[in-house]
Amino acid sequence: MKGIVEAGIVYLVGAGPGAPDLLTVRAVRLLGEADIVFHDALIHPGTLALAARAEKVLVGKRSGRHSTAQRFINKRLADAARCHRVVVRLKGGDPMLFGRAHEEISFLRKSSIKVEIVPGVTAALAASAELGVSLTQRLVARSVVFVTPRTAADAPPSGWEKAVAAADTAVLYMAASDAQAVRDALLRAGMRPDTAVAIAENVSLESAGVHAGTLAELPELARRTGDGPALVLIGNVFAALQAAATRDLVARSASQSA
Amino acid sequence: MKGIVEAGIVYLVGAGPGAPDLLTVRAVRLLGEADIVFHDALIHPGTLALAARAEKVLVGKRSGRHSTAQRFINKRLADAARCHRVVVRLKGGDPMLFGRAHEEISFLRKSSIKVEIVPGVTAALAASAELGVSLTQRLVARSVVFVTPRTAADAPPSGWEKAVAAADTAVLYMAASDAQAVRDALLRAGMRPDTAVAIAENVSLESAGVHAGTLAELPELARRTGDGPALVLIGNVFAALQAAATRDLVARSASQSA
Repeated sequence: MKGIVEAGIVYLVGAGPGAPDLLTVRAVRLLGEADIVFHDALIHPGTLALAARAEKVLVGKRSGRHSTAQRFINKRLADAARCHRVVVRLKGGDPMLFGRAHEEISFLRKSSIKVEIVPGVTAALAASAELGVSLTQRLVARSVVFVTPRTAADAPPSGWEKAVAAADTAVLYMAASDAQAVRDALLRAGMRPDTAVAIAENVSLESAGVHAGTLAELPELARRTGDGPALVLIGNVFAALQAAATRDLVARSASQSA
Repeated sequence: MKGIVEAGIVYLVGAGPGAPDLLTVRAVRLLGEADIVFHDALIHPGTLALAARAEKVLVGKRSGRHSTAQRFINKRLADAARCHRVVVRLKGGDPMLFGRAHEEISFLRKSSIKVEIVPGVTAALAASAELGVSLTQRLVARSVVFVTPRTAADAPPSGWEKAVAAADTAVLYMAASDAQAVRDALLRAGMRPDTAVAIAENVSLESAGVHAGTLAELPELARRTGDGPALVLIGNVFAALQAAATRDLVARSASQSA
């Protein structure tokens, strides 16, 4: 067996929506065992601290637009697996939703490196929990679509707005910064301007906030949103928030600061 | 303050897809603190064991069809909060996706009982992790819809098939037992019979299995599926599985039994 070195395993691990205690038990264990952790921007410091003995390497691009950077990440993961036993690639939310996991998995498999994926709590579900509004409701909402309108320069039209219009509930990732274009596309796709929407930012963190209103008001809601990660939630299930959300949050932040 | 008793809190907690180490750290902590746990059928024994000091009450209905039973659960949760400090309502996957959380939250709030929701890893994401196929892929799939075609007797038509047809990727919950009706509805909605599909059963457990093929073959794939919980996954991202999935799983189950 001379010259053959057993390569390590690359674990693509979901870091969940933000709060460190929303990681899975499996994710926490792997972070504890990791020799090296490649992580996105915006991972909570308390989550990174779980990887006590690992070298930490920030590789985050927030929007995932730069394919050159992605190729560089792919190569670094493969290189790391050749000299470490446990390599963790830590991604916000769940790795398989808007995380470009496909490119990393394909590259690693082509490089004959073992990959395992540890699912995580995606931000949409944490937002739903925080708002207290179920994404599905019996007799009212039986389909939920997760989409991103964010377009790569080389991307063909994706029809994301038709997918939103056809589902009962929708959660848009990486959409709050393009609120006007998002609203206009959804109105053109036939959605009603009085459809209930909410923007949830910094989901699961102390700085969490929500702005609720109608689709017509989406650009205005986005202007009131900070520059943390934000989700746009759309559908009749959020109608009750329009009146209540701001009031509840004010009450909650008052009780937290008391 | 005579006669006023401080009510407990009801935590709606996601138990994740099955494997106990796919619970969140927060869920594990709450189970450890729980005085009483109301749980669905099919919760892993290792997960229930985390609630060491709690009374465990099975309230599961698997399909969620019986509204009488749901009203009974609502009432039991409220009653429990009047005599216990920590009441956990443990639901498979995430509570806010096809979990009828809305009805429990509404009832508890009307009863002036505090509710908190702890999100979980939904089965679709665990299936994606297990199959090694990302639900979104750059330039290929930018929308993912989660739906259930399961209909209550009193439900209006939901248009779930249009939501599936409009999204790049779809995951159908509680659909495998109606495979023929599901296939026929999707073909009528304009989907191609050669669209890639997979059925994933017992996701995240040792008994996990997958059957991959085309939409036209869905009833045949369902016949090969056991009677554990199963998801139907649909979309071009699963095309690579049609050839590879069965082979991989055979190899994996051989290595597990070795």
